[in-house]
Amino acid sequence: MTSTLNAQTHPLSNALLHRAQRVVPNAMYGHQDARGLWPGAPQFVSRTSGPRIWDADGHEYIDLLCSWGPIIHGYQHPRVEEAVNRQRQLCDTANGPSEHFVTLAERLVDVVEHADWAMFAKNGSDVTTLCLTIARANTGRSTILVAEGAYHGALPWCNPDTTGVLPSDRAGLAYYTYNDLASVEKLVIEHEGDLAGIIVSPFRHDAGFDQEMVDPEFAQGLRRICDENDAVLILDEVRTGFRMSFGGSWEQYGVRPDLSSWSKAIGNGYPVAAVLGAEALRESAGSFFVTGTFWFSAVPMVAALASIALLEERDGVAHMFARGNQLVSGLREQAASYALSVNITGPVTMPYLSFAGETDHQFTLAWTAECAARGVFVHPKHNWFMSTALSEADIDSVLVATDTAFDEVAKRFF
Amino acid sequence: MTSTLNAQTHPLSNALLHRAQRVVPNAMYGHQDARGLWPGAPQFVSRTSGPRIWDADGHEYIDLLCSWGPIIHGYQHPRVEEAVNRQRQLCDTANGPSEHFVTLAERLVDVVEHADWAMFAKNGSDVTTLCLTIARANTGRSTILVAEGAYHGALPWCNPDTTGVLPSDRAGLAYYTYNDLASVEKLVIEHEGDLAGIIVSPFRHDAGFDQEMVDPEFAQGLRRICDENDAVLILDEVRTGFRMSFGGSWEQYGVRPDLSSWSKAIGNGYPVAAVLGAEALRESAGSFFVTGTFWFSAVPMVAALASIALLEERDGVAHMFARGNQLVSGLREQAASYALSVNITGPVTMPYLSFAGETDHQFTLAWTAECAARGVFVHPKHNWFMSTALSEADIDSVLVATDTAFDEVAKRFF
Repeated sequence: MTSTLNAQTHPLSNALLHRAQRVVPNAMYGHQDARGLWPGAPQFVSRTSGPRIWDADGHEYIDLLCSWGPIIHGYQHPRVEEAVNRQRQLCDTANGPSEHFVTLAERLVDVVEHADWAMFAKNGSDVTTLCLTIARANTGRSTILVAEGAYHGALPWCNPDTTGVLPSDRAGLAYYTYNDLASVEKLVIEHEGDLAGIIVSPFRHDAGFDQEMVDPEFAQGLRRICDENDAVLILDEVRTGFRMSFGGSWEQYGVRPDLSSWSKAIGNGYPVAAVLGAEALRESAGSFFVTGTFWFSAVPMVAALASIALLEERDGVAHMFARGNQLVSGLREQAASYALSVNITGPVTMPYLSFAGETDHQFTLAWTAECAARGVFVHPKHNWFMSTALSEADIDSVLVATDTAFDEVAKRFF
Repeated sequence: MTSTLNAQTHPLSNALLHRAQRVVPNAMYGHQDARGLWPGAPQFVSRTSGPRIWDADGHEYIDLLCSWGPIIHGYQHPRVEEAVNRQRQLCDTANGPSEHFVTLAERLVDVVEHADWAMFAKNGSDVTTLCLTIARANTGRSTILVAEGAYHGALPWCNPDTTGVLPSDRAGLAYYTYNDLASVEKLVIEHEGDLAGIIVSPFRHDAGFDQEMVDPEFAQGLRRICDENDAVLILDEVRTGFRMSFGGSWEQYGVRPDLSSWSKAIGNGYPVAAVLGAEALRESAGSFFVTGTFWFSAVPMVAALASIALLEERDGVAHMFARGNQLVSGLREQAASYALSVNITGPVTMPYLSFAGETDHQFTLAWTAECAARGVFVHPKHNWFMSTALSEADIDSVLVATDTAFDEVAKRFF
């Protein structure tokens, strides 16, 4: 059933939901299904600008979700839009790529330490899948180790939902526990002689759970295991890319993957994904046919070039860490002031807040609903994302809303 | 090795290829790799407009490839671009879909006879894969029948190249021969009790081969077999959609699939894909999680709405058939006048020309190179695409070039 919003405050949202119910299974699906947010969350967006979004009924929110990651400079950043405007006059989807295909590959190879080459696609799952194929082509082996519960896309091999999925779709996979090197080593022995690679996220960000930073020794241990077994280390940067550092997320631990998959934040909302790879994998990456209708379109590549230039020129990553620290320290102080025990986990540029001891996220759901009622959009079950568009004053405004939200939750539940 | 173009005529292309060689495996990959075209074909596009494209060195071509399908109204059609300009001011990639998500679903359900609901994605392979998952969820069975040699995308289950692919990636598939109902019936018996569905293209358009129209009795036979076995008939319209009819491509044969996959021509170059489904499949389609970062973006949906409106208002399909007939009958007359035996196959809106009796496409490659030298872009190994932007005068210009190209081929080889 379609969840019906308050008819007084959300008449247009309700009307759209009723129409959607007729022509879309369950009216909506996937990560943007508003039933995954707080009760009564708006499903449709009518306007975006900078760090703000408006729902279908015109309610305004400061947005700390950034479309689940892509919006790293705020919506419709003038510099990105200007580059897009120019390119749209020239060409976008065409019979071949534009010169920007080459320039973007050069730029990513320049910015990301481990990368000697790039290939582009459209979805995050295009590039995580491509990494597995390259690893298997490179080694002639089958088994890829995947962290139990990790999200690498929604294709049959990686979808957290196994409805309609065959056991054979995952025949080449084995599952380790994140940050548990012994669980990896056990699988390496079990699959001796057939280990093609290990895929891993820069930190543990499984939806619905508190986040967990990587233990640097775990990251270094994966590198060592791959080296010892001639296996391919694949870092899935789809969610993390450019929000942990201006470069690869594990450069800070001295760990270079062989392959990395990128998408969300590359193009500030324009659809583009990339595999980046080390020299040793180049030949394998070029040893087979792979493609997609829209993979070579020029406009998202121009958007990515503008977005990366902005990140560099304005030290965007440092800006996001500063705003993230402002937010997270403010939230911690507020929660403490109401004697509420909260877990705030992950890098401050991609924080997630939950209430200690809750079941089924009931306090977090209530808190995010209170935030939303005060014009702040945060997710109850998924990490949030900072953007360079958020000013100190924006975070101050966010903190005014979150303070009242904590107060409401404290009064209602504790 | 990078193929090097004529240094006098293609200095900028050559420079880009040399740069690409450093940062992209083999400099380029996939269907837009110019090494799949005629020798010396340009790799990079610098400008597009209406029915024309310009390569990186400024050479102009009348384009009969339409970016391998997406461009159905010509590049940068003012009506589509105007709708995109308006929407870009409002929102594109955001925390939820816009109202246009609903309107586009309504529109497709209205236009395509078999469809009662729609789901959107980004790549053609997103939606062919989703069709398989829905069929398996619906039936609780595994086996999908696929035509030998058919192209349904480049994911491990369907990539024509099996490098890096595991046998288990295709464990749930069995292969029939297109237009051979007996070959299907044999597999149905072999997989009795496990048949989930059959995927089929509206006509046979395997790259590198002459095309073959569907035998209506074959289409009707697949429908009957699916009905008798409670299996799901999946029509892959990714390449054909809106170029065979303003609606489903098999409506003309009285055959309604249960599911159909769409992408290329929906949005006139803007990236969007769709699964359309019958009522009986709605619950299964809504029974699992599936998603993608950019699947709900508003701009491609607005482009699709404008593109579909244009098709309807101007009877775009009839226009493309008229121009296709003009082209194909002209080509047939020309070939006959030089006593050249050519095969022109497929619907005239998606024609393909090859020379009878050639091996390795050597005459077709030479002919397409001669066409290109005279400013006409056609593909030597893949069907071409008509667009509504092509005027009678454009096709007349094309035919001037093709006539000389036939003359050159006749003189050189026959």
